[in-house]
Amino acid sequence: MTDIPYRSALIIGAGSGISGSLTRLLRSAGLPVVIAARNTDKLTPLVEETGAIALKVDASDAAGVERLFDETEVRIGALEVVVYNASGRVRGPIADLDPGEVERAVGVSALGAFYSVQQAAKRMLPTGKGAILLTGATAGVKGFALSSPFAMGKFALRGLAQSAAQELAPKGIHVAHVVVDGRVRPTGQEESEEQPDSSLDPDAIARTYLDLLRQHRSAWSWEIEIRPWVESF
Amino acid sequence: MTDIPYRSALIIGAGSGISGSLTRLLRSAGLPVVIAARNTDKLTPLVEETGAIALKVDASDAAGVERLFDETEVRIGALEVVVYNASGRVRGPIADLDPGEVERAVGVSALGAFYSVQQAAKRMLPTGKGAILLTGATAGVKGFALSSPFAMGKFALRGLAQSAAQELAPKGIHVAHVVVDGRVRPTGQEESEEQPDSSLDPDAIARTYLDLLRQHRSAWSWEIEIRPWVESF
Amino acid sequence: MTDIPYRSALIIGAGSGISGSLTRLLRSAGLPVVIAARNTDKLTPLVEETGAIALKVDASDAAGVERLFDETEVRIGALEVVVYNASGRVRGPIADLDPGEVERAVGVSALGAFYSVQQAAKRMLPTGKGAILLTGATAGVKGFALSSPFAMGKFALRGLAQSAAQELAPKGIHVAHVVVDGRVRPTGQEESEEQPDSSLDPDAIARTYLDLLRQHRSAWSWEIEIRPWVESF
Amino acid sequence: MTDIPYRSALIIGAGSGISGSLTRLLRSAGLPVVIAARNTDKLTPLVEETGAIALKVDASDAAGVERLFDETEVRIGALEVVVYNASGRVRGPIADLDPGEVERAVGVSALGAFYSVQQAAKRMLPTGKGAILLTGATAGVKGFALSSPFAMGKFALRGLAQSAAQELAPKGIHVAHVVVDGRVRPTGQEESEEQPDSSLDPDAIARTYLDLLRQHRSAWSWEIEIRPWVESF
Repeated sequence: MTDIPYRSALIIGAGSGISGSLTRLLRSAGLPVVIAARNTDKLTPLVEETGAIALKVDASDAAGVERLFDETEVRIGALEVVVYNASGRVRGPIADLDPGEVERAVGVSALGAFYSVQQAAKRMLPTGKGAILLTGATAGVKGFALSSPFAMGKFALRGLAQSAAQELAPKGIHVAHVVVDGRVRPTGQEESEEQPDSSLDPDAIARTYLDLLRQHRSAWSWEIEIRPWVESF
Repeated sequence: MTDIPYRSALIIGAGSGISGSLTRLLRSAGLPVVIAARNTDKLTPLVEETGAIALKVDASDAAGVERLFDETEVRIGALEVVVYNASGRVRGPIADLDPGEVERAVGVSALGAFYSVQQAAKRMLPTGKGAILLTGATAGVKGFALSSPFAMGKFALRGLAQSAAQELAPKGIHVAHVVVDGRVRPTGQEESEEQPDSSLDPDAIARTYLDLLRQHRSAWSWEIEIRPWVESF
Repeated sequence: MTDIPYRSALIIGAGSGISGSLTRLLRSAGLPVVIAARNTDKLTPLVEETGAIALKVDASDAAGVERLFDETEVRIGALEVVVYNASGRVRGPIADLDPGEVERAVGVSALGAFYSVQQAAKRMLPTGKGAILLTGATAGVKGFALSSPFAMGKFALRGLAQSAAQELAPKGIHVAHVVVDGRVRPTGQEESEEQPDSSLDPDAIARTYLDLLRQHRSAWSWEIEIRPWVESF
Repeated sequence: MTDIPYRSALIIGAGSGISGSLTRLLRSAGLPVVIAARNTDKLTPLVEETGAIALKVDASDAAGVERLFDETEVRIGALEVVVYNASGRVRGPIADLDPGEVERAVGVSALGAFYSVQQAAKRMLPTGKGAILLTGATAGVKGFALSSPFAMGKFALRGLAQSAAQELAPKGIHVAHVVVDGRVRPTGQEESEEQPDSSLDPDAIARTYLDLLRQHRSAWSWEIEIRPWVESF
């Protein structure tokens, strides 16, 4: 577990099961970790358990994201891993959606990711080392009815990931997009007895992120999709 | 040319070659047409030539888009065709881009399209009739280096198109996304003698839009891509 | 209808609704048409109705395909349109399928298409003019359970179409792949009253093929998908 | 390295760098390994180095593949990992290719993979345990000019992989398709000093296969792509 070739990590949009599991894995590998969320209160148990540092951020605010990166580097040094895990979701018929809510949803899913990739790039380019992992969803490869704002945000995130990978990989920065296809099991919830492992285990997801971090640069992935064994696609 | 099964059209993001050719084709088929752009001065020749009506709009402003649709219906009656042809583009290394410009680019390429699809849906759903055509680009299916904001906007547009097609087609509204893959030849420019038709002729693009408008609902396309014969992809 | 820029057509894998509708459209546009199938008996009504010529062929036999093209050119002159509409389908659990049947299915869906594209290319390259249309299916873009041989054949067909388009388009030959997504309504069958146009009308499909034949070379499509308005995807 | 949850492996199409590296990794994890190829002479050094067993097979022959699986199970017991790494490639203009060579190429790339997946499924279904890994290529997601037979074979392989994953994953068998995008560095060859790691290191590829074998069933991938950091895509 100690063979991760990076020395520090920032996870944005922390709070969900994925971020918790990833924080634990990175901490157990010895990396200092900052976890950032709009609401850090809910992060207290994770901070106490792992020794990670919690910082507040509104990911859709470019200046706020810059401050987060500044503060993070003050606290844990030069950043080498950035995970963007935030997203905004509004559901409903197109005709009924509130335009302001749609704008905010796309702002969190896509613009916030851009601001984060930008700050990461600025800090990683001088050393030519780092990894940026973006949490995608099936909604980023297929647009479903009644979910147009989420489709917009997650498609945009995927476009950003591919464009950033094309630009940054040859400069030593590994950019990857993880398509999480299915429901993530809330941490601590018992799995279904009838259909074991029919939702994504956050620990299993986090291990996929670690697989990406450990890839040799002669064989980098820019995208991987994961889903429960029983899920059709 | 008179067999278009719709009676009125609004083209948003007019001014480019595609919008001009499309306006001419729709007008010659007898449809009243409104062409909307941020700057309507440049539309004067097209208005004089075709009798289309020009209206001002900032497509990235939800309230402005709603006013445009209201005014359009006052001028030409119930809308049956809406074409979204606006996009925002900023190029450059991720680290050098201005966050505000990125936000504006995504606002025009993607949020403006959402506002337009929403207004179109509100007006077309009661009659269960209409067509919404969205102008995409190769950047919406593949993310290129140094063009991340355009990738984000055009990927988002494609996600919107697919989600909207899934939701609105079964309600009688044809939503389609046209992937324009290559340089569009400016109207009036002589074609290359060495490589004739090596850029997209706006009249040829417009005919593809008409092909979509004429499709029978038992065989609708949600996406078509077009490129010059000599272009590899 | 007389504006098809080609003068003769060969349809391979005739017999289905698509081929019948396409034969009628091409004949009504004045083109001589050869329709080829393994069993030509069933083509008699279509021959009598349209004046098309029926020829026998086993599309999975390379030599037979070459003879078909030779004979076709003897009968109707230099070929300018070739449509490949044959496919082989075996369904069932992977473990239960007969290897020989799988080989035959892939032979008809994919190898037969290659032999036909090759014969078409040989004949069209000298004049730098022609169109090759390949009938695909949803199974060519998504692999479904219990249908692996059809997935193999239709994926292979799509790969052939894309490779052939990249090679032959710059030489003046338009290659396009039509993804027919849904059930095709048998010719003559009444449509559902509850859900009108919920299966693909063969006449509507054929009109899409004609749209492709009429595209200007500055804006060629290599792929288009069509499905009934009520079909989710 | 000993945490691979499977106990035996068969690699078909051995000989290339990928198979060699994978054989070493699996052997060092303690698994008995059979490596199969049309020509086993070239496998002697690998057999001597690793203790793997070499068997002859013509992968495009269904009966031969069945015999290979029978013999493999006699030698190393119930099979739990099968890797299909064979492919047939013919290059050239469509008009110049030999139909028989095209058929053989598709036979090795695609039909041989089907026969192998089928034999694997028959043996793994009773226990509901196993993994099948298929070596794909960029040619399986994009059709290039002058390479239509390889496009057909690799597209077909990808269709098979997706269809098989949909069918077999819910029965406990992990099917995955690895898109190897770029040139694989021959084993033992010095890497470029100017552009280090600009071709895929076979050891790095093999580690990706191991990552897949170690995935938890609540988060299985059916596809992953890998390419050198400097490669645009």
